[in-house]
Amino acid sequence: MRNDVENTAVANTAVTNTAVDNSPAEKTSVAVLGLGAMGKALATAFLRGGHPTTIWNRSPGKGDELVAQGAVRAGTAAEAVRAAELVVVCVVDHGAVQAVLDAAADDLPGRVLVNLTSDTPERSRATAAWAEERGIDHLDGAIMVPVTAVGQPEALVFYSGPRAAYDTYETALRALGGRPAYLGEDHGLAAVYDLALLDYFYAGMSGLVHAFALAGAEGVRATDLAPYLGTITGIMPPITAYTAEHIDAGSYPGEDAPLAMMAAGAGHVLEAAEQRGLDVGVLRAVKDITDRALARGHAADGWASTVEAVRGG
Amino acid sequence: MRNDVENTAVANTAVTNTAVDNSPAEKTSVAVLGLGAMGKALATAFLRGGHPTTIWNRSPGKGDELVAQGAVRAGTAAEAVRAAELVVVCVVDHGAVQAVLDAAADDLPGRVLVNLTSDTPERSRATAAWAEERGIDHLDGAIMVPVTAVGQPEALVFYSGPRAAYDTYETALRALGGRPAYLGEDHGLAAVYDLALLDYFYAGMSGLVHAFALAGAEGVRATDLAPYLGTITGIMPPITAYTAEHIDAGSYPGEDAPLAMMAAGAGHVLEAAEQRGLDVGVLRAVKDITDRALARGHAADGWASTVEAVRGG
Ligand SMILES: NC(=O)c1ccc[n+]([C@@H]2O[C@H](COP(=O)([O-])OP(=O)(O)OC[C@H]3O[C@@H](n4cnc5c(N)ncnc54)[C@H](OP(=O)(O)O)[C@@H]3O)[C@@H](O)[C@H]2O)c1
Ligand SMILES: NC(=O)c1ccc[n+]([C@@H]2O[C@H](COP(=O)([O-])OP(=O)(O)OC[C@H]3O[C@@H](n4cnc5c(N)ncnc54)[C@H](OP(=O)(O)O)[C@@H]3O)[C@@H](O)[C@H]2O)c1
Repeated sequence: MRNDVENTAVANTAVTNTAVDNSPAEKTSVAVLGLGAMGKALATAFLRGGHPTTIWNRSPGKGDELVAQGAVRAGTAAEAVRAAELVVVCVVDHGAVQAVLDAAADDLPGRVLVNLTSDTPERSRATAAWAEERGIDHLDGAIMVPVTAVGQPEALVFYSGPRAAYDTYETALRALGGRPAYLGEDHGLAAVYDLALLDYFYAGMSGLVHAFALAGAEGVRATDLAPYLGTITGIMPPITAYTAEHIDAGSYPGEDAPLAMMAAGAGHVLEAAEQRGLDVGVLRAVKDITDRALARGHAADGWASTVEAVRGG
Repeated sequence: MRNDVENTAVANTAVTNTAVDNSPAEKTSVAVLGLGAMGKALATAFLRGGHPTTIWNRSPGKGDELVAQGAVRAGTAAEAVRAAELVVVCVVDHGAVQAVLDAAADDLPGRVLVNLTSDTPERSRATAAWAEERGIDHLDGAIMVPVTAVGQPEALVFYSGPRAAYDTYETALRALGGRPAYLGEDHGLAAVYDLALLDYFYAGMSGLVHAFALAGAEGVRATDLAPYLGTITGIMPPITAYTAEHIDAGSYPGEDAPLAMMAAGAGHVLEAAEQRGLDVGVLRAVKDITDRALARGHAADGWASTVEAVRGG
């Protein structure tokens, strides 16, 4: 593990525009590989932070606006890597990461690679093994906010991997989001937390769109329903906190909102959606879980008790 | 439709304790039928608002703490109805509502019935038809907050049915929640909005518990994950607003977060959950919807485009 990355001043990449902090000589030089929606946001955040920034994307023609802000465009991933101390890769998935890294493998040792591509813990660990074999210092990470929030104080980004590499580059990585969270040495941890948050997010997104479809089937406009949905979003923080406590304790008090009552509610949603010809795959799966929890004797417990049916067995 | 309910002073039910507003003679007398978790919270809120409150529950032995706060216990639902101008019924579902109302049908004409039991729009309309046949003024409603929030300024409660009955009792109903929302004359509307919000809520709850199970399979405690889940909850308000606009417009721009990228993410969650032996019913259904949206050509659109696959056809 390489802990003492030198902070070599980088000659090129004058940052001459409206960057918030334009003292490039003191700033870690970075490369951003991948200029999809997220890669562009990352490069923009580094440029705003005054970092000499080299960019590369598989398909040409992306990133003109970044060059206008002072980024240097590299012709190959390897060329981008050679220009930087800190190399961030953010592409669609692990397969794309491997395609990019294989072409730049010889130039990565001596730099720190940060993989901000979202994928499974297993594949994050596979990338870690690939990097370790080649003597490449590597952190895995995951961005937990939309592109519009990248670089903002509240933007949460997970990191895992060698603590020393994280500590060396924490200041530079703060350009990407003001809430970096270092989770531990296991490279898979960022992906574990990432996928858990996405698990909650995609379920919520599918419920959100389904709610609009259900109300829409009765002629209610989505924009008329939307303001009321904020009431549900607003009750989630305390529910999240006590659900976590109940799950850790393995005890699920439900006196205020018994599962039997909530399962009846979920059944009504399912029935109403079916009658209106909507897809009910998610609702059926939710009902299936609550049915199994009720069959296990959790009628008077809270919704947290469904965790046992989720775990199966 | 009876608009001019007299505000007859009620002789009994001295509210002598710490009620916030204890001037019963000016307050609408109410009956609460059903003392489950929610019925108790409703009765408590009426008592706090200074309303002479009569209570009844099918099984005896519930509501001692309400009597201690000044409520009068009735021996039958009909007796409770006779003591009140405004009759609130809140039981587990429509079947229970009918059981309660059938026993009190002769005493309901001349009062206003408010059904705060959650069920489908179809069954809310069936109750409305039942009430209309018997000359009973009737509002349907739905409480959109947990019992702990009942009576609070932010508590959202939907109402639908005759406007005149709502207007007459709006002040009294505000005791239950500071955000009453009157939706229109169609008795089914409160249930439409209710089920839409529950659709979003139960999907989110199932994702929340699944997230804890997924992280837990890697040894992460639920209480360690929970603080980070707030980041997802926090991004939902703007996402809700633009998703609604895109659905109403029938156009789903996705440049910042293309469905292909999000579908890949949902696929990773599914794969990781499967490898850990968790129930993946909900995740499979989510993936199924995104797959169908991708097949319809929405790869570069946003998640809102899945609404077309939800609607089917
Ligand atoms: N967008 C968000 O809101 C958001 C939020 C949090 C996390 N993320 C994560 O950020 C990552 C990137 O997402 P995105 O929104 O930027 O996706 P995107 O807009 O779809 O961009 C995908 C990127 O991957 C590249 N790519 C795909 N296959 C490749 C290959 N075989 N070799 C080299 N490059 C390849 C694409 O290059 P071409 O231009 O050549 O196709 C493009 O740069 C994903 O892991 C995503 O989960 C995104
Ligand atoms: N709790 C919440 O957080 C919440 C939030 C929003 C909306 N709601 C809605 O409020 C309503 C009541 O929920 P809850 O939490 O109070 O449920 P609960 O605690 O399970 O209580 C159910 C109530 O229904 C009564 N009941 C059931 N079957 C009956 C029948 N055949 N005849 C007469 N009474 C019968 C029960 O009486 P017994 O005591 O005799 O069994 C009990 O009073 C539901 O529609 C629910 O969706 C609840």
